[in-house]
Parts: sequence; structure tokens; C-alpha cells
Amino acid sequence: MTKEVKEALKVIKRGIVDLVSEEELIKKLERSYKEKRPLKIKAGFDPTAPDLHLGHTVLLRKLRQFQDLGHEVYFLIGDFTGMIGDPTGRSETRPALTKEQVLENAKTYKEQVFKILDPSKTKVIFNSEWFSRMSIEDVIKLCAKYTVARILEREDFKKRLESGLPISIHELIYPLFQAYDSVALEADVELGGTDQLFNLLIGRDIQKEYGQEPQVIITLPLLEGLDGVQKMSKSFGNYVGIMEPPFEMYGKIMSIPDHIMWKYYLLLTSFSEEEINEMKEKVEKQELHPKEVKKKLARYIVSQFHSQELALKAEEEFERIFSKKELPTEAPTIKIKAGKLWLPGFLREQGLVKSGSEARRLISQKAIDLNKNTVTEEEIELSPGEYFLKIGKKRFVKLVVT
Amino acid sequence: MTKEVKEALKVIKRGIVDLVSEEELIKKLERSYKEKRPLKIKAGFDPTAPDLHLGHTVLLRKLRQFQDLGHEVYFLIGDFTGMIGDPTGRSETRPALTKEQVLENAKTYKEQVFKILDPSKTKVIFNSEWFSRMSIEDVIKLCAKYTVARILEREDFKKRLESGLPISIHELIYPLFQAYDSVALEADVELGGTDQLFNLLIGRDIQKEYGQEPQVIITLPLLEGLDGVQKMSKSFGNYVGIMEPPFEMYGKIMSIPDHIMWKYYLLLTSFSEEEINEMKEKVEKQELHPKEVKKKLARYIVSQFHSQELALKAEEEFERIFSKKELPTEAPTIKIKAGKLWLPGFLREQGLVKSGSEARRLISQKAIDLNKNTVTEEEIELSPGEYFLKIGKKRFVKLVVT
Repeated sequence: MTKEVKEALKVIKRGIVDLVSEEELIKKLERSYKEKRPLKIKAGFDPTAPDLHLGHTVLLRKLRQFQDLGHEVYFLIGDFTGMIGDPTGRSETRPALTKEQVLENAKTYKEQVFKILDPSKTKVIFNSEWFSRMSIEDVIKLCAKYTVARILEREDFKKRLESGLPISIHELIYPLFQAYDSVALEADVELGGTDQLFNLLIGRDIQKEYGQEPQVIITLPLLEGLDGVQKMSKSFGNYVGIMEPPFEMYGKIMSIPDHIMWKYYLLLTSFSEEEINEMKEKVEKQELHPKEVKKKLARYIVSQFHSQELALKAEEEFERIFSKKELPTEAPTIKIKAGKLWLPGFLREQGLVKSGSEARRLISQKAIDLNKNTVTEEEIELSPGEYFLKIGKKRFVKLVVT
Repeated sequence: MTKEVKEALKVIKRGIVDLVSEEELIKKLERSYKEKRPLKIKAGFDPTAPDLHLGHTVLLRKLRQFQDLGHEVYFLIGDFTGMIGDPTGRSETRPALTKEQVLENAKTYKEQVFKILDPSKTKVIFNSEWFSRMSIEDVIKLCAKYTVARILEREDFKKRLESGLPISIHELIYPLFQAYDSVALEADVELGGTDQLFNLLIGRDIQKEYGQEPQVIITLPLLEGLDGVQKMSKSFGNYVGIMEPPFEMYGKIMSIPDHIMWKYYLLLTSFSEEEINEMKEKVEKQELHPKEVKKKLARYIVSQFHSQELALKAEEEFERIFSKKELPTEAPTIKIKAGKLWLPGFLREQGLVKSGSEARRLISQKAIDLNKNTVTEEEIELSPGEYFLKIGKKRFVKLVVT
């Protein structure tokens, strides 16, 4: 193994879960450097409206590492099946997307992912490109290349079949479509979350069936959210969106449990594993306060998505409020009309609480302040002016009432 | 129920196995007669080179009965999947058919089936008509309408899955295509063999999914072949082809075991069930010789595919040979060149034996005669002239050697 390949391998293997197979990856890397032909690195994304959070950046950072090693990323948007929607009609949350919506979503993706990826080494592609040209005959030939028994080995299919939950036949076809994307791209490597392992492996089989060298599979771990327990997800409300303002981002990262910050360091920063271990040891020996380590992490992440300056400003602001218990000078501003305001509904609409009942509970716990006065009623009356509304310990908004 | 419907029902129910459901059929018949709108009767046929035998005519006769009751037959040729062939590449016996071959086969079908069906009430259609216009999206929507669990209930799928034999995913799609044919046709009734019951039932489900009234399902029994045991099939060599000459047809029917002739009467003739039962009783009481009943059956069937005159001629010929042990005056003629002839190969090529080893066995049993002289060698030498070759008890050919 050349030194170049050895070093590349170290970067690639950091923080990953599965690698199928290391031997094949070495072979591909060696050939790539020898022939000066970048590897094609595939990652598939959902065509629905993206709102990326730190959990997604685990994968994006790995893609970026491949780019830094000289390879090319194929950012594949699976728009073809998205444009079909949910053909069973069971799910109302999966409407068919129009071509316009897909392009609009792709634009939003680009705005976000180019905060991490190198645009000059990224190809954004849509799988409708090949599927819209495919005939039914081609689909049948694709379906002939895989057996029912093997696809039913997939954990979720197996469980549903065993527990008598319906699997529609088209659901067996979708993983083959995803696998065929690798054929169309002639992908060398495909990346995905650990939950995608089975689908990525089908890609290898299908490539072989079409006479191609199988892609190498790499899976990345799922990142736990702010609670340190469940995976980061919008639906759990435990996420940090990568488009969030500096102060929100900083504050949210400061709220993670100490034990999870080492994983955040590993998956979300470029600190070397040696540096991370050193900090960890110091914390264990009580030579370093965990809060300092967390602040460094928060600064790093905010700097990445905004700037170092804004990260430092967010830190100052955070310190001012939580160390000195002052009101923030900067907080999101919401303009509303003067008059009566039903707080549970308002807070839920603004996304400041997860539900009306959470708002009511906070009120009963005297955890909501309006200009430092505890709110005791669900309905408040506001005359024109500016107000600071504090919800719980860390959520603030400025209300501009006109 | 009107008298008309009652009588129709009696005709339709004769000899069938499954009827799903009688109630629905009555409803459809009543409405059809009331609105003077013929029912659409669907039957699907394979697009490969047809060579129909009496086994197929069980279904064709039932279709003809529907026509005689005023309804319209949709003779559906499943050419779409036939033009794909075997996409797994495993079967060499299922090459992809060209459009020309499909049309050629359809022509051959028509020549044969119109010996039974009424052309004025038959529509020959190809399912490529709708499938070639279908998009992948339509296919996915179709596949979304049926679950994996239900399709794996099909007996052959279940067995293969349990015994670890591969089922390719495209095989799950084919029954849905067949079911969709019923949607495209808006079929009122579909007929098939008992082995088709499961597929026909899917047609009902899929029609409902597309908002149509489900078709009534009727299955016909499989007809036992000349051996009276296995189903009639070309591959078992126990069949009577409907294009066979009168003498062969007559002789083959005369060779069936006595016990099976009642089923032949029920499924292949128009004798009423009362007439059939009467004959059966007389045979049991030894008032009637079973050979006479079988001769009547053979005459009936030969008349249907040829003419009464030719049927009687075949009967005379048959009597002359087997009652008086004479050589036949009419036998298939084969022209060959003078010289050495290797009998096992020749007989197998001519379809007069199933294999070379059968021929060798017959020779060793002294069961082959050439102009009444027993053949003892596998290779014979023929000088120009005419010869009668007798193979076993009932097979004859005339050799014209030049």
C-alpha cells in the first residue's frame, strides 16, 4: 500500500460503521491515484423539502473528505419515485412532487450542502434522468435480477411480514431502483447511514448483474440529538438545523449532555482523534472543565456554518445571559398586532413549544416571563411596544407589538 | 330469477370447478339480459406457438356456450410479457418473441379456435395494446395495489419460498399484469383452468382497486390425457391435437381407458347430463358395450373437428384394421430416399415414438412390422417402393421410398 493510500484510508475510516470491503477500497484507491481518475462517490438524498441538521452533516463531512482526497461526489436526488408520491394513497404526508418542486428543493439543498461540500467537485444529479427513459421492459429485467427471498431479509420487511403488516409489491421495487442508480452512475463508492446498509448492498449485487465492478459501501453512524439519546431528527425536536442563526445554534450545542460531546467531536469536527482523546483524558482528570470543551465545540460548529466572528459573538451573548442572568440583546423578533394573545397557540405556531400542552405546563410552572414578569394566564393582552418573552430557560423572542 | 337466467346458469355450471360467485353471476346475467348488453367474457392465452389439444377445448367449449347465450368472448393473447421472454436468462425455452412471431402465432390460434368459437362473437386482442402505452409510474401504482403477503399465498410461490428456490421479483409483477388485463377490458367474467384460480382472483381484487365491479371467476377442470391419469399435455405425449387427421384422432380416442370416457363426454360433448348418465347405467348393467360408447364419443369428436363423413370413414378404417387385422388403406405417408435407415432415429424424428430407446424396446419386443414382416434390426435397408410400417398396435405409416 502506498503512503498516499494509507493516509486516505485513515481519513476515510474515521468514525464510520461498515466498510464493505476495505480490500476493494484499497484496490480502487490505488487504481484511482495511479490512473489519475477520481473515484465516483455516490450519496442518495430524498427529493422532499430539505431542512438539514447536524445529523445530516456526518455524511456530508465524509463526502467532503473524499473531495479533499481528490474524488468526485455525485449528490443524487431521488426525484423519480418522489414524483410518484405514495401510490398506495395511505400516506397523506407523501404527496407527489412536481418537477418544479423538485428543482426548488434541489436549490434549497445546494444552499445548504455547499456549506460543507466543495461545489467544484460535486455533481448534483436527478435519477429521473434515467428512469424517465426506462421502459417497462427494462424495469422487469431489473426486477428479474433479484429474488423475493433476499429482499425480504431486509429487517423492516421481515418484521412487517412476520407481524402481518402489509408490504405493497412496489415497495420491493424501490430498493432495486436505488440500486440501479449505482449502475447508471457506475459508482465506485456509496455512502449512507447505518440504516441504509441493506439497500447499499443491493447496489453491489445489481452492479455485478449489469457487469460492473461492485461499489464499496461505507455507512456512517446516526448522530444522537440534543437529548443524547434519540437520533437527531426533526420529528423528535432534538436537532440543530444548519441554517439556524448563530445564537440558537450555539445555545443548542451547549445544551447537549457531556457524554455525547465526544461523538460530536469525532463526527462533526476536524480535530484529530489524538486531540480529542487528550481533551477527554484531561476532563477525566478534572484538569479541564467539560463546559470549556463544549464551548470549543459550539464555537467550532457555529464558525463552520457562519463565521468565527459570529461564533464569538454568540458565545458572548450566551455567557451574558446564562452567567449573568441578563436579558439578551439579540433575540429573534416577531411582529404582532396589539390586543389579546392566546399564548399556547401562539408559541406552538412559532415553533417555540412542541405543543399547546407544553405551553400550558410552562405557564403553570411559572417558566414563562414577559419583560421579567412571570406570565400566569394563558391569554395576555399586549399594547404597542417592545417586549422580551422568555420561555423556559433558553428560549427568547422579542415581540414588536404595533 | 328469470327462466332465461336459470337456463343460462345450468349451461354455465356444467362441468366447472370454481364459481366466484354464483350470486354475482346471476346479477350480471340479469342485468345483461335486461339491458341487452352482452357480458364480456375474458380468457387469456399464452403467446407462444399454439398447438391446441382436446384439453384446451374444455375451456373453449365453455366460451362457446357463453357465446351461444349471447355474450362476447375476449380472446386475450398475453403478448406483452411474451415479448420480454425470460428476463432472468435462466430458461432457454422462453426466448423473447418478436411482434411478427406474435402475429403469426395469433393467426395459428385463430385457425384452431374458430373450430369451436363463433368468430362473430370473438374479439382477439393483445395486451401489448395497453402495456406498451403504460409508464413505469403506472406500473408502480399497479404494484402498490397488492401486498407481498397475499401474492406469496399462491401455492407455487409458497412452496418455492419454503424450499429455498428463487423467486425473482418480476415474477410477482406478472400476475398483476394479468389482473390488470381485466381492468383494461372491464371483464365481467374470466375463465381459466383450476390451476389459474389464484391469478383470476387477483383480477377481482385489482378491478375493485380501480373502481370496477369485480369479474366473476369460473374455473374448468384439467382434462386427463389418453392414459386417463396425467393431465393432457404435449409434454406427456398423451394428447389429441385438434388439427390431427381424422384417423389419428379417432384411434387416439378409442385408446382411452373406459373410466375416463364419462368425463370426456361431460367436458367435450353436448350430450345432456341425463343422456350421459343413461349410457353409464346401461354400461354398468352390461346392456351396452363400453366400446360402443367410446366409438360414439370418437365419432362425435372427429365430426366436430372434421366432418361426420370423415368421422365415419375413420371409424370404418379403424374397424377394418383392429377387428380384421388388415393393413390400413390410409395412413400418413412419409417420403424417404432409398438406402439404409436407422429406425430409432427416424421414428423419433417423425414423432412416432417418444425416444430412441422406446423404438429399440419395440424392436426387441418384435412390435415393429414392415409389410407384415417383423423388424429385428435397428438399421434396415430400403429399396425404392411402397412399404407399410406398423409401430406397436396402433401406429402406422406408409413409406414411399424413391
